[in-house]
Amino acid sequence: MSISMSSASLPIFITMLRNLNHFLDKAQQFVDTKKCDPTALTQFRLAPDMLPLARQVIIACDAAKNAVARITGNPAPKFEDTETTIPELKERIQKTLDYLATVPASALDGTEEKEVTFPVGRDSTRTMKAESYLKHWALPNLFFHVTTTYAILRHNGVELGKADFLGGGVA
Amino acid sequence: MSISMSSASLPIFITMLRNLNHFLDKAQQFVDTKKCDPTALTQFRLAPDMLPLARQVIIACDAAKNAVARITGNPAPKFEDTETTIPELKERIQKTLDYLATVPASALDGTEEKEVTFPVGRDSTRTMKAESYLKHWALPNLFFHVTTTYAILRHNGVELGKADFLGGGVA
Repeated sequence: MSISMSSASLPIFITMLRNLNHFLDKAQQFVDTKKCDPTALTQFRLAPDMLPLARQVIIACDAAKNAVARITGNPAPKFEDTETTIPELKERIQKTLDYLATVPASALDGTEEKEVTFPVGRDSTRTMKAESYLKHWALPNLFFHVTTTYAILRHNGVELGKADFLGGGVA
Repeated sequence: MSISMSSASLPIFITMLRNLNHFLDKAQQFVDTKKCDPTALTQFRLAPDMLPLARQVIIACDAAKNAVARITGNPAPKFEDTETTIPELKERIQKTLDYLATVPASALDGTEEKEVTFPVGRDSTRTMKAESYLKHWALPNLFFHVTTTYAILRHNGVELGKADFLGGGVA
């Protein structure tokens, strides 16, 4: 059976967001053990002009949420982007997973050729066919922000490894 | 038209390896401008127990090469993993792109249910169906190592942005 739009999106989004949630569990353990200020992690940036960890998590969630909403043509729930703590970020991931669970495969399947228009930067939009948008925009964005979160945590000494990245510690 | 195994793999692998090559062009410009030791970048690690940039690039290449070889069942060309300089790493990427160009879509298409066995760690193997292997192993690995390369370069001040990540500077 060939790959459908739903099977090329939902399982990958869900797996990577669960793994991201698992990274944050390990980050919380790190904070508890070291008794350090948790914002030292959530506000950490790998470069002054990169986004801090909290924004990386929020954007990873939105990469999945917005992809599904744009491809299906149904508006996604709007979140306020106010999360700053590890528990708040975990809640954001859960809300995103809850939303993804409401989307039936049938709303995504068959949309390969559908045109998707989305904002790029502050004042422009881009239009791509849904299949290209998924493969060359949504998935790379999701992986970018999940990996950058992982990199920030690893750089700060949080105990994570490739098994955590690929399978939330159970790969 | 639904998504095929070839269209879910080759275009993504090729795009991301070209973007990775573009990161290295910007890294070379950085080294030339700063007149710094290029190994300061190629040997840089985000954490003492993470791999340095040179290995991130090599493994990104191998994520694509090995995925295609394992799914098609045809052995891939073996490379010696001796690359340490930016020009050598760019050559590794080009050799990988050259290999991918030899693989016909027909060798990948229809393999969704085929079992793929691959090494995990030093002394074990894992078996997954090709479709799952692509979505949950090969693609995450490719994106992980491309993003980590990007993160190392950004952390060191190389001028890169999201457009470079998504589209090699032409997104």
